[in-house]
Amino acid sequence: MIQEDTISAVATALGEGGIGIIRLSGVKAITIATGLFRGIKGKTAADVSSHQAAYGHIIDPASNRVVDEVLLLVMRSPRSYTREDVVEIHCHGGPAPLRKILELTLAAGARLAEPGEFTKRAFLNGRLDLTQAEAVIDVIRAKTDASLRMAVGNLSGRLADKIRLLRKDILEMIAHLEAAIDFPEEDIEQLAAQEAGNRIRNLCLAIEELLATAHTGRILREGLETVIIGKPNVGKSSLLNALLKETRAIVTDVPGTTRDSIEEYANIGGVPLKIIDTAGIRETTDVVEKIGVEKAKEFIPRADLILFMLDSSAPLTVEDQAVLELLTDRQTLILVNKSDLSPVLDLARVTQRLPDKKILNISILEGTGMQELEQCIIDMAYGGKVQVPEGGFVNNVRQAGLLDQARQSLQEALSAIAAGMPPDCIVVDLRSAWDKLGEITGDTLGEDIIDQIFTQFCIGK
Amino acid sequence: MIQEDTISAVATALGEGGIGIIRLSGVKAITIATGLFRGIKGKTAADVSSHQAAYGHIIDPASNRVVDEVLLLVMRSPRSYTREDVVEIHCHGGPAPLRKILELTLAAGARLAEPGEFTKRAFLNGRLDLTQAEAVIDVIRAKTDASLRMAVGNLSGRLADKIRLLRKDILEMIAHLEAAIDFPEEDIEQLAAQEAGNRIRNLCLAIEELLATAHTGRILREGLETVIIGKPNVGKSSLLNALLKETRAIVTDVPGTTRDSIEEYANIGGVPLKIIDTAGIRETTDVVEKIGVEKAKEFIPRADLILFMLDSSAPLTVEDQAVLELLTDRQTLILVNKSDLSPVLDLARVTQRLPDKKILNISILEGTGMQELEQCIIDMAYGGKVQVPEGGFVNNVRQAGLLDQARQSLQEALSAIAAGMPPDCIVVDLRSAWDKLGEITGDTLGEDIIDQIFTQFCIGK
Repeated sequence: MIQEDTISAVATALGEGGIGIIRLSGVKAITIATGLFRGIKGKTAADVSSHQAAYGHIIDPASNRVVDEVLLLVMRSPRSYTREDVVEIHCHGGPAPLRKILELTLAAGARLAEPGEFTKRAFLNGRLDLTQAEAVIDVIRAKTDASLRMAVGNLSGRLADKIRLLRKDILEMIAHLEAAIDFPEEDIEQLAAQEAGNRIRNLCLAIEELLATAHTGRILREGLETVIIGKPNVGKSSLLNALLKETRAIVTDVPGTTRDSIEEYANIGGVPLKIIDTAGIRETTDVVEKIGVEKAKEFIPRADLILFMLDSSAPLTVEDQAVLELLTDRQTLILVNKSDLSPVLDLARVTQRLPDKKILNISILEGTGMQELEQCIIDMAYGGKVQVPEGGFVNNVRQAGLLDQARQSLQEALSAIAAGMPPDCIVVDLRSAWDKLGEITGDTLGEDIIDQIFTQFCIGK
Repeated sequence: MIQEDTISAVATALGEGGIGIIRLSGVKAITIATGLFRGIKGKTAADVSSHQAAYGHIIDPASNRVVDEVLLLVMRSPRSYTREDVVEIHCHGGPAPLRKILELTLAAGARLAEPGEFTKRAFLNGRLDLTQAEAVIDVIRAKTDASLRMAVGNLSGRLADKIRLLRKDILEMIAHLEAAIDFPEEDIEQLAAQEAGNRIRNLCLAIEELLATAHTGRILREGLETVIIGKPNVGKSSLLNALLKETRAIVTDVPGTTRDSIEEYANIGGVPLKIIDTAGIRETTDVVEKIGVEKAKEFIPRADLILFMLDSSAPLTVEDQAVLELLTDRQTLILVNKSDLSPVLDLARVTQRLPDKKILNISILEGTGMQELEQCIIDMAYGGKVQVPEGGFVNNVRQAGLLDQARQSLQEALSAIAAGMPPDCIVVDLRSAWDKLGEITGDTLGEDIIDQIFTQFCIGK
């Protein structure tokens, strides 16, 4: 399924770096590069063997001027990222050379790649299945080492392997049942249906196991949206800083660089915490703020996790109680800060109101209780289960939705069996489950859905 | 002059991209990569030939887990950027995989590279001279195509070639004069001195020609600091938008990306205009601002170019006149906006006060006068001279300062000749000029100056 046009894009992140890459993919990639590249000793792009890097210059054909000094890396079809001919032009990593060279490739006949189009071609040409293609963007956007491990596991096809096993199982059942249809003696039909019933129940369990990873998968992929709530001076800003402390050094910063992070994620034992309204918390450190019940009302419904801070050294205020009312049915940790001071707070009134919420005594000042807090958050993220080391996670809504639909079809098959329906009715449900699972890996898929998936990518991937 | 330790850094810009590169350079580069890389069919980094890219995975030796899918590009000494063994690990371009792999290289014995250390090694190992090394960072930071062409010209050694010709000339004179010292007949000495005098005068002219490029070079490299001044509603914001219009599409944006630019440069025919206080100008579009004489006082002394806007349809205000007082001796263009409306402004009072300033009638609304404005700015940047197409520019203070010192030494040599001093006195001045020129290319240079130059680089280059 080779595409006719040749695409081009900047493949590295923008900004200033030592090296920047313009990547071309398609049937004309090498021809276009030949028109722009002048190697030492007259070497052209066409002379470069596959997976070989050649030193030379990019020349503007219009002016015959040198644009930049480059390395040209040629990867010939099918041994490339897209399975098409791929040429990478490695130039100096600044906006001006990258832009100029990209423009020259476009003028020479390449088309600017759409977001994710390189990976889409890798999928269309059969080098990646859809779970692997989705994992590419998860690797790039990974927020912690744990997120990275999950994404790399899916990139290597762990999730796809599990899905394919399920599909193989379903296909075997369909074959059995269809054989029974061909030999329509009552006994065989019933036996086949009974055997199918057992296998389908096992399949449902396997799918539920996969769906159970979706909770952790989503958190590792997208982060746990967390809000810190509490009255002024209760220690919100100190808690934020304590949570972000590690992060700032670990997640978003690469040693030796000064670039500020775009988003702030706290890295709690590999769990990315996306803290809502960090700016709001920071701004309120110096000024006397209102309790912010209005703010709590705004953020509590949006958050995955609420960290509600109380002051051990002060009585419960009217506003504290108003917030407590909002926390029923919300995933909440109640943090009683300043536990180093003599206790004044009447905790009984809190437990009476919210008997099922976990309460932690902490002192951010003295650093006590912080490890317990981290463990609580990790337990929540992994659902209290042993941490799956890597791979095989369901980690997006699309995958989870399709798994759920497949499970529903299987349960309908079970109902059909229980109702003594004929095998061809059961087969219809099984086929539907088989199709839904196929959509996860992309083995059965419509073009519109493919487009929707790849537009979430960044340009150049 | 091979360094003993092996350095490692992220070589691509930070952020999200399809591809990111960790680069290693030094004697242990291939050994370190061998400990981390697992190629297909058991291929190791040591098996990869020079300039060959191998597909495989980076494995965390501690856990034996896959960190990312990579291409490994090996470039063996001396055919590499630094002339040392260089290994590039091409992984997915996200912060998590880049950080993790960088950490693994450091754990395996590499040292985090200092800013510019790869290029510094290229210089220390003789692959680049100092003007070329300085041009590397100018290529990366180039703000317009014209800036890029200048930097690439210097990268290819055009400036160094010119300097080396001057040094060769001086060395020949020194040899002549020293020969005259060895044969101390009066006539020969005088003849040699006279001949040297002519040659030195030519050398001074050549140096002055080079110094004349410094003005344009600095503007192309750093941008022309420009301030737009004028009373409220005179059209500052519209002028800013008109100037930035092209820029936003051309300089900082690469097609298809959404990243906002870090700094705003207007690209006026290749001349980068760095407009001061753009935020201030933007903020004042909707509110009635004060005339801002205070602001003018703050910015006028800092700017390379002042665009002072007057309103053709309104009389000169007291505040306008106060600003006019500040513009004597400053490079200023007076823009009379709203020239589409019936003129009220008494321009005679402006020309009386500032007889030497250029006055342009423009109408931003109708787009008239804008081309003339652009041409004025281009003329200022290039000093009214024909545009030098590329290369051979002096473009930083260090180079210009050394050229000026060399010229002074040559002029002292001329004085010595005029005073009839003996050849050995002349030789002392010539040697001094020869040394100063050598510092430009790095042929004569102290280690402290080298360090100072390379710390201006970004990490990973």
